[in-house]
Amino acid sequence: MPYVDIVTVLAVLQFVVFGFKVARARGRFGVKAPATTGNEVFERHFRVQQNTLEQLVVVLPGLYLFGHYISPLIAAALGVVYLIGREVYAAGYVRDPAKRGPGYGLSFFPALFLLIGGLFGAVRALFYLS
Amino acid sequence: MPYVDIVTVLAVLQFVVFGFKVARARGRFGVKAPATTGNEVFERHFRVQQNTLEQLVVVLPGLYLFGHYISPLIAAALGVVYLIGREVYAAGYVRDPAKRGPGYGLSFFPALFLLIGGLFGAVRALFYLS
Amino acid sequence: MPYVDIVTVLAVLQFVVFGFKVARARGRFGVKAPATTGNEVFERHFRVQQNTLEQLVVVLPGLYLFGHYISPLIAAALGVVYLIGREVYAAGYVRDPAKRGPGYGLSFFPALFLLIGGLFGAVRALFYLS
Repeated sequence: MPYVDIVTVLAVLQFVVFGFKVARARGRFGVKAPATTGNEVFERHFRVQQNTLEQLVVVLPGLYLFGHYISPLIAAALGVVYLIGREVYAAGYVRDPAKRGPGYGLSFFPALFLLIGGLFGAVRALFYLS
Repeated sequence: MPYVDIVTVLAVLQFVVFGFKVARARGRFGVKAPATTGNEVFERHFRVQQNTLEQLVVVLPGLYLFGHYISPLIAAALGVVYLIGREVYAAGYVRDPAKRGPGYGLSFFPALFLLIGGLFGAVRALFYLS
Repeated sequence: MPYVDIVTVLAVLQFVVFGFKVARARGRFGVKAPATTGNEVFERHFRVQQNTLEQLVVVLPGLYLFGHYISPLIAAALGVVYLIGREVYAAGYVRDPAKRGPGYGLSFFPALFLLIGGLFGAVRALFYLS
């Protein structure tokens, strides 16, 4: 499923870039490791990265299972929506945490849809098997 | 392996529900993003979610590899024990963090067993191949 | 791909061991759950574990996709470099957070290389398919 695999890598690379931004904010605002608090803007970057980690464990199994049971192309397309949603989320959160909602929804709902689709596909496969 | 895939989705959905409870606690106890501290009950919900994230990277590869090399049915059954253990863990932690031990064990040991079984299966496969 | 699967399990087990060290530091330095701050050495162990969680979502898909599209043996070998890099990272961080750089690089670059290799392989597979 090369389409799904490409989107998988892009989702992980996006997370890596968010991590770079945390490291840059660490330097810029003088937040010394192991601290993860002390500067509001640093904390925003940090929370964007941490929340993206939480979303990755939803979207990666979702991409794989939806791609396997339903359609790799639709899975990849939903994954692209997720990627865009995460960019909107990150930009919104860093500007103003109160405005993180729309980007959150735009990334969370495709991820959830992938996962529920994968569940549906697996349950259906169970009935075909038996 | 539809059984394994169903349990995989359920483990991720359980994590999503723990995330909803963090968001609800954020509102209820007035912990404004990006903060993740400031109210003890919020912090309990947050730690339940974060610890479940840590467990997911153990149990998901474990489910897959045990299912692949040993038995999908036994993998799924151990996954169900993990799911129940996580519920016990979450309920115990929110009531009193000092009582999180039993639920932790009930979710960690099946996860570890899945992983070690997967390792055993992979090593065995290596000898069959050579 | 038994080689890749063995390294996958070892990477997760390494993370589990880092988690044990967090639990031990919790007891030793009296950091009561749900707190994750309050003692500098505890926080170092905690950040080692959290950062390793962040690296696992890079290296595990990387191992799988590089192994699938390019070479399971090279994937496993890069995975072993990652494992060693993480040990260097953890030891360095706990001694002095300012010295976490070399171990970080030694684990991050193989993980990134695995991921980029997987991306390359998936894109190449797309052209073969069409």
